[in-house]
Amino acid sequence: MSMPDILQNDRFLRALRREPTDTTPIWVMRQAGRYLPEYRATRARAGSFMSLAQHPEFACEVTLQPLARFDLDAAILFSDILTIPDAMGLGLSFAHGEGPQFARPVRTAADIAKLAVPDMDGELRYVMDAVRLIRRELHGRVPLIGFSGSPWTLACYMVEGQGSKDFATLKALCWNEPKLAHQLLDTLAEAVAAYLIAQAAAGAQALMVFDTWGGLLGPAPFREFSLRTMARVVEALQASEHSHALPVILFSKGAGAHLAALADTGCAALGVDWTMDLADARRAVDGRVALQGNLDPAVLRASPAVIRREARAVLDSYGNHPGHVFNLGHGITPEVDPELVKVLVDEVHAHGRILRGG
Amino acid sequence: MSMPDILQNDRFLRALRREPTDTTPIWVMRQAGRYLPEYRATRARAGSFMSLAQHPEFACEVTLQPLARFDLDAAILFSDILTIPDAMGLGLSFAHGEGPQFARPVRTAADIAKLAVPDMDGELRYVMDAVRLIRRELHGRVPLIGFSGSPWTLACYMVEGQGSKDFATLKALCWNEPKLAHQLLDTLAEAVAAYLIAQAAAGAQALMVFDTWGGLLGPAPFREFSLRTMARVVEALQASEHSHALPVILFSKGAGAHLAALADTGCAALGVDWTMDLADARRAVDGRVALQGNLDPAVLRASPAVIRREARAVLDSYGNHPGHVFNLGHGITPEVDPELVKVLVDEVHAHGRILRGG
Repeated sequence: MSMPDILQNDRFLRALRREPTDTTPIWVMRQAGRYLPEYRATRARAGSFMSLAQHPEFACEVTLQPLARFDLDAAILFSDILTIPDAMGLGLSFAHGEGPQFARPVRTAADIAKLAVPDMDGELRYVMDAVRLIRRELHGRVPLIGFSGSPWTLACYMVEGQGSKDFATLKALCWNEPKLAHQLLDTLAEAVAAYLIAQAAAGAQALMVFDTWGGLLGPAPFREFSLRTMARVVEALQASEHSHALPVILFSKGAGAHLAALADTGCAALGVDWTMDLADARRAVDGRVALQGNLDPAVLRASPAVIRREARAVLDSYGNHPGHVFNLGHGITPEVDPELVKVLVDEVHAHGRILRGG
Repeated sequence: MSMPDILQNDRFLRALRREPTDTTPIWVMRQAGRYLPEYRATRARAGSFMSLAQHPEFACEVTLQPLARFDLDAAILFSDILTIPDAMGLGLSFAHGEGPQFARPVRTAADIAKLAVPDMDGELRYVMDAVRLIRRELHGRVPLIGFSGSPWTLACYMVEGQGSKDFATLKALCWNEPKLAHQLLDTLAEAVAAYLIAQAAAGAQALMVFDTWGGLLGPAPFREFSLRTMARVVEALQASEHSHALPVILFSKGAGAHLAALADTGCAALGVDWTMDLADARRAVDGRVALQGNLDPAVLRASPAVIRREARAVLDSYGNHPGHVFNLGHGITPEVDPELVKVLVDEVHAHGRILRGG
């Protein structure tokens, strides 16, 4: 790699390895998003959300936008979590900003049998092109995170055909036809692993799996259908030359009771939502993995003084231990004033420095 | 009271008192609901959801409908959780089945200052009339549950003005103006207590508080804004001659981590959602309260064999201890086939009888 690629800020990667850092690194889930006027402008030029994701120049542009405003310690690839099922031929669309819809949802044994791992140099090449372009344009300023939806979460949308409060169609498949459900999830685990390995080969420096809907499952189905397939993904990543050295972050929203089991997968870090104290989360994983989180995103609707206080409370709850990446407990919402994100980022760095004596 | 009022089935009340029962009692959250064709027919006659709730004859009719089909051990008043804010003058409506909307949401100190506890013999008399009529029409067949939304959950809708994913407007008020938020919640705690006491006086035999949105809060705000106000309600109910002998059930969805603290309020029972095993929930409360739950409502989308198996798993997880009321972990959904509810109810009674040697 050329000189500009030498990483100038490795706080995020050091924290994921549970090494000491001068201050606590921070990035924000959905940091390239609708709360930024420049994002809305690029999206308007792109014409649609999927066009934004599918054109590497647009994806690169919006990925870098929050870094121009805030002192963030990581960039994350701008993309959609449903790129894989779209590449599998399900026909993804976003009807008037209403959330995702698939023209051809997966319902029958025949539907599942014909699903194939997409070609990472074919249908999904646009994602790898975006990763390469973003890496180049970052000039080593901060590391780039690649990501995927978890097999369970992808299956939720693929079987339901759209968003849902309970994704009962997939749940019913799991209960009525567990073999078919496992066949679907196995294919998705293979696809997610191949997708993340290809992102690593293209230049991603950390990999994150978003298990947005794992928390909808009871304890036994969570272990069987969500956790187990994520463990297979982690295993595949560790076996690949492209990704074996990369830290993997798993984030199962609403699954705070399962942190210890999630840490057993061999991942480097776990995302934590805002419904538990980080001190408890750290005890649950016994220092075996780094933790990423966990400010309530709604705090960004409060005053600067409150944001600073609540940010300090999250940092203090984790304490002066290695292995904390500050983040929200869920994605940032469109109503947030970008100025308040600056307040948050700066306070995390300032208080993190005091906390860590950096 | 006249002869027909002698309770013929006291399983539910005995379980709430943690006394032995011949089998495990069951009722189903939202058992009078859209999954029943006879409910849809009555609603069509009533013209609207609010008309259904506001006319005692309609409310009574739909309350009794599920009891005619299934061997349920309790009836629950048919009503809406937002009757209190509606009676406070906020102007509740349901726009084309889209969820609740308030014409005059509560936002300012002046809005909060002018809120008053509604007159239970005035604006809310229709609820008490419904309770009296249902009690009469039940003829003592099973006990009648009265209910209210929790102060926190009512405040969520009142401040947001409608449903929301995160109710960030109320959260921001709690962070920015905690005194104002407490003033609002104190007024609501007083109103909820008065409302439940009036239902008790009208004939309700158990009282339930639905804290649907408490689980959206982080641990510290949950204790401060949701749990503490529910504790005040329980205290007020225990101090009233009408309600002091009645069991109170608190249900904070998504708050499984807080069961022990919820049990400290002095309630008789806690609702448990489906994301934790009842065995763990029982350990958490150390047998101090009864538990109500916790089958994943989506199980009712699966086959009869699966429904029976999963129902037995819930019963076995609780075990042969006193104090279990079987229920779903959340309300039943409109797509469910009523025949499958019969499968569930009958299996719970059959397996509960075996488990309890009844």
